[in-house]
Amino acid sequence: MHENQGLAAIEAIKQVDRDSAKKAIAARLYRNGVRQSEPVDLSYQLGEGERVEPIIPDSPEALEIYRHSTAHLLAAAVLDLYPGTKLGIGPALLDDPKGGFFYDFQREDGRFTPEDLTKIEKRMRDLIKRNLEYKRVEMSRAEAGKKFAELGEPLKCELIEEKGGETVSCYTIEGTPFVDFCLGPHVPSTGKIKAVKLLSIAGAHWKGDDSRPQMQRIYGISFFSQEDLDAWTRQKEEAERRDHRKLGPELDLFSINEVIGSGLVLWHPNGALIRKVIEQFLNDELYRRGYSFVNTPHVTQSELFRISGHLQHYSKDLYPAMKDEEDERIEYRMKPMNCPFHIQIYKSRQRSYRELPQRYAEYGTVYRYERSGVAHGLMRARGFTQDDAHIFCTPEQLKSEIRGCLELVDFIFKAFGFEYKAELSVRHPTDHEKYLGSDEVWTLAETSLAEALVEYGLPFERMEDEAAFYGPKIDFKVVDAIKRTWQLSTIQVDFNLPNRFDLEYIGADNKPHQPIMVHRAILGSFERFFGILIEHYAGAFPVWLAPLQAIVLPISDRFNDRAGQVELELREAGFRVQADLRSEKIGAKIRDAQLKKIPFMLVIGEREAESGTVAVRDRVKGDTGALPVAEFTAHLRELVRTRKINDEL
Amino acid sequence: MHENQGLAAIEAIKQVDRDSAKKAIAARLYRNGVRQSEPVDLSYQLGEGERVEPIIPDSPEALEIYRHSTAHLLAAAVLDLYPGTKLGIGPALLDDPKGGFFYDFQREDGRFTPEDLTKIEKRMRDLIKRNLEYKRVEMSRAEAGKKFAELGEPLKCELIEEKGGETVSCYTIEGTPFVDFCLGPHVPSTGKIKAVKLLSIAGAHWKGDDSRPQMQRIYGISFFSQEDLDAWTRQKEEAERRDHRKLGPELDLFSINEVIGSGLVLWHPNGALIRKVIEQFLNDELYRRGYSFVNTPHVTQSELFRISGHLQHYSKDLYPAMKDEEDERIEYRMKPMNCPFHIQIYKSRQRSYRELPQRYAEYGTVYRYERSGVAHGLMRARGFTQDDAHIFCTPEQLKSEIRGCLELVDFIFKAFGFEYKAELSVRHPTDHEKYLGSDEVWTLAETSLAEALVEYGLPFERMEDEAAFYGPKIDFKVVDAIKRTWQLSTIQVDFNLPNRFDLEYIGADNKPHQPIMVHRAILGSFERFFGILIEHYAGAFPVWLAPLQAIVLPISDRFNDRAGQVELELREAGFRVQADLRSEKIGAKIRDAQLKKIPFMLVIGEREAESGTVAVRDRVKGDTGALPVAEFTAHLRELVRTRKINDEL
Repeated sequence: MHENQGLAAIEAIKQVDRDSAKKAIAARLYRNGVRQSEPVDLSYQLGEGERVEPIIPDSPEALEIYRHSTAHLLAAAVLDLYPGTKLGIGPALLDDPKGGFFYDFQREDGRFTPEDLTKIEKRMRDLIKRNLEYKRVEMSRAEAGKKFAELGEPLKCELIEEKGGETVSCYTIEGTPFVDFCLGPHVPSTGKIKAVKLLSIAGAHWKGDDSRPQMQRIYGISFFSQEDLDAWTRQKEEAERRDHRKLGPELDLFSINEVIGSGLVLWHPNGALIRKVIEQFLNDELYRRGYSFVNTPHVTQSELFRISGHLQHYSKDLYPAMKDEEDERIEYRMKPMNCPFHIQIYKSRQRSYRELPQRYAEYGTVYRYERSGVAHGLMRARGFTQDDAHIFCTPEQLKSEIRGCLELVDFIFKAFGFEYKAELSVRHPTDHEKYLGSDEVWTLAETSLAEALVEYGLPFERMEDEAAFYGPKIDFKVVDAIKRTWQLSTIQVDFNLPNRFDLEYIGADNKPHQPIMVHRAILGSFERFFGILIEHYAGAFPVWLAPLQAIVLPISDRFNDRAGQVELELREAGFRVQADLRSEKIGAKIRDAQLKKIPFMLVIGEREAESGTVAVRDRVKGDTGALPVAEFTAHLRELVRTRKINDEL
Repeated sequence: MHENQGLAAIEAIKQVDRDSAKKAIAARLYRNGVRQSEPVDLSYQLGEGERVEPIIPDSPEALEIYRHSTAHLLAAAVLDLYPGTKLGIGPALLDDPKGGFFYDFQREDGRFTPEDLTKIEKRMRDLIKRNLEYKRVEMSRAEAGKKFAELGEPLKCELIEEKGGETVSCYTIEGTPFVDFCLGPHVPSTGKIKAVKLLSIAGAHWKGDDSRPQMQRIYGISFFSQEDLDAWTRQKEEAERRDHRKLGPELDLFSINEVIGSGLVLWHPNGALIRKVIEQFLNDELYRRGYSFVNTPHVTQSELFRISGHLQHYSKDLYPAMKDEEDERIEYRMKPMNCPFHIQIYKSRQRSYRELPQRYAEYGTVYRYERSGVAHGLMRARGFTQDDAHIFCTPEQLKSEIRGCLELVDFIFKAFGFEYKAELSVRHPTDHEKYLGSDEVWTLAETSLAEALVEYGLPFERMEDEAAFYGPKIDFKVVDAIKRTWQLSTIQVDFNLPNRFDLEYIGADNKPHQPIMVHRAILGSFERFFGILIEHYAGAFPVWLAPLQAIVLPISDRFNDRAGQVELELREAGFRVQADLRSEKIGAKIRDAQLKKIPFMLVIGEREAESGTVAVRDRVKGDTGALPVAEFTAHLRELVRTRKINDEL
């Protein structure tokens, strides 16, 4: 830590550590010992009581600054090549499959082509080679407005009008016509940018508003090293290869249909079969663990969600109201969640402590009116089915109920081959204003959750001030086959709804008490989980889930009878099997089966027909030799019974 | 057949058959050999070219005339006892659980009480004993209006105004103040009425219109013999004992909640469990029979139902529209049926004749906005889940697909212990105007359906002119344990939707063809079917369906451990079993188990604990002796495996 009033940040850093100074791209600022929320340029002049720390590529803030600077570089290259282009905005992106930054442009003279991207990228490299300085200039708001008006940048003028303070900062890149209204900070010079790639061109509207000018958005990505960029590119290609929106139609799993509407999913036979296998797997597990299933409607009079508070707070997320044409007092809504329905079942008669816990599970389809632009295949749908459950219990039972949920989460994630991480979200340690419920009940709940996690031996991250206003929660994130993380499960304690709905049970003391309510979902929603599964397995579902587990392939019509026998035998043993009796060459049949990612191809020729065997070919390793049918059946049965992820025999 | 111009009908009948004349209550009229749609009184004077046939108690028209006359008798008794009462309407009812007739009254001076009913019933008997004549009087419309105005019957005046022709007929009962505007015919005299009973008093509005006067409706029933009345009363009591709306809360199966709304069902844990067992039973059967499951949303843009035609023709039956507040072009509807969704899956890619038939099944929850007064427990709900399926096939495949449906219907009805009847609804034999589709395709479809029925050996009734406009169909009615019939299943051929949605498949000739679509549901809806099942079994579900299959009852706390062991052993064998470990007397435990209609009570005392047995008590026959646990388990397994209706060991 350095304190050197009047020095530039980079000089202050150099005095302490020349090596860090070489790597630094910006600096963290401390004023009177307090860290400031915004980092500064390396050219920043230290004021009284200020000191800095270097931000180097490994620092958590580094990538955003770096990519933001790359976005500026992109704009500079575009202005260089296409004079007269007007600028929109150009932020960094950190966790977006589309890229690591973008810049929006408005051109009178045509649209950017893929060839233009190559040209622009080349110009960016030229500017990098010249190692040009990023310069910060401060001026009054009026001056800035005038300057951008002169530059012919009306959108920037609009931004300055809206967001500028008394003093406004702008950034240029030396030797280019580029000037931007920007808070910064930026890398000191273009030479700092080591690896950059432009990715795509998309349409965008200024401020996302259809009525405002149409712009062209160029996406790109940058990293501190070419190796990181290459790794990202490979991972992106892998993700594209696995994209559920591409595999969905290829494997005939689902579709989303524009007549029916955005975000509303049709599950085709193959997809619905996988869903049913998962449902049945969960049915058995949940009954075994003392859950009861319930079924509730998808629509209700709005009153139910007025009592729950959803209507007042989340009405924008609901599908529009259904208003009775003859009686204006009657209004219905499709349900955005299942909880109030389960509560009505709980309330349908008086409950005694002897009956608790009540654990209600439902594959409850809910409808949320996400903006249509936000819908994204299965990952973000407007109608989706939660594997929802609500547990009503006494405070004393809370810990063991949470423990039960943890065991279930673990069991289910492992069945699908997911690693996972847990996060415990609790209140702010001191500021309790925004949370509902007494200190006593919060302490009990937070303690129950933390103890359950510790006793179960699950490592977790404690997130302070991340609880819901109505109670603490545990969130689970799974890590998929290509190391992406997805938030799936949640276990939430709720002190709010039991209160709003006046829930009660009669205690051992013969007096009414308020039960605690736990919301929990493991898969989250079947739609999103299925999307993740498709990408996790790249469409090659493990045998227990595969729509077709094996296909019988006679090498010529002569063996069709035998193929039919084998098919029947396997079907009667309870497996999902077909025979491909088309008059196609065996090579073509194998190719088709491989495209459908069917786990096993059972080839039958002369030798197999005579010996009662099948020549087994699996989708990963290819031929694995001939086996008697009974032996293959036994293997298959074992793979299904153990829900083996890797289907090698 | 008699032709005796100028004679009274009864005289003409007497000339032919004195016995029939004694029994006759009215007469069928033929004019020039053509049967007239309206029967006539026995006092009717035959005109030129007319002849009559007697209507005797066995005649199909008899009961309606008889009960209509009983309704008049009721009104006469009321006017006798409560002068000044004003009359509404009083029709016969033939198939209504509330009774066999009613009359609506308006009284200024108070409400009818149950004691009043007794008094009125007694006065009716008095009038019967006096054998008073029913008299028909004809007059001009103006005269009739004047007469009823004088009588102080404004509602009758309103009716005459609306419905009267130039000449108007009225009926009186001799010796009473009663006059009614009525087409008749009626029994000749009160002495003909043999068995009558008044049942209940209900509120009603004139013409069912809330804004019109409130009236008091008295329901009653009448039969040609006291034996018939007694049998009806017993059946009604039995039906009340079995009423699913009474058993639903008693057995904690379901509820309908006024906050959520009329006709929207909450399935409680016990009910949902039974539903899940049925679903799983169907899942297995349907997959085995080559169906594919699909899942589709509960909401769609209205456009889908505009294409299908439902919006234009049935919009009153739909829940109100959901209109996007920001974009008026966007409107959604909850689905009243699943067909158009399955069609969209069919249409999601090109189909070849090789892929047909496609059989899509879904437990699809649909929503229909029935008038709230019409909703009736589970029997008529606004949201219900159909066990729906749609088959897309070639014309050549139609017969074997229908055959497959017949086999499935038979298999499923037998599993629940239902007898059933089939009806084949075809076009009018000559008038084809109102039907859609070519003669060729109708002939093919009607022939396929009839042949499938004949070949399968199922007797059926052929109903001419009862087909839907879009195709012929087969309906199935089951007969329940107390001999009531319920329409459940339907198999419908549809030539309309394939046309409206431009469905196609590529035939062996490489050209596009239109597939035939078959709609079929077996249970109809889970809600209604469950209502019928509850009443069919009187809540005592067979073992394979029972929410709790056995309960273990230790005779004192000393045997709780052993009871727990037995419970665990049975649960691990896959049965739904609990132990009742409360410190209650064994008698109380048995009584509670009996009330819950649990198939088996397994009592454990000293002897059973020592010998590893359970003393088995079944809910029907009581104690059936002690058995080793393993032996009882084997019995239970067999009952479940064979889905035995009668659960005797």
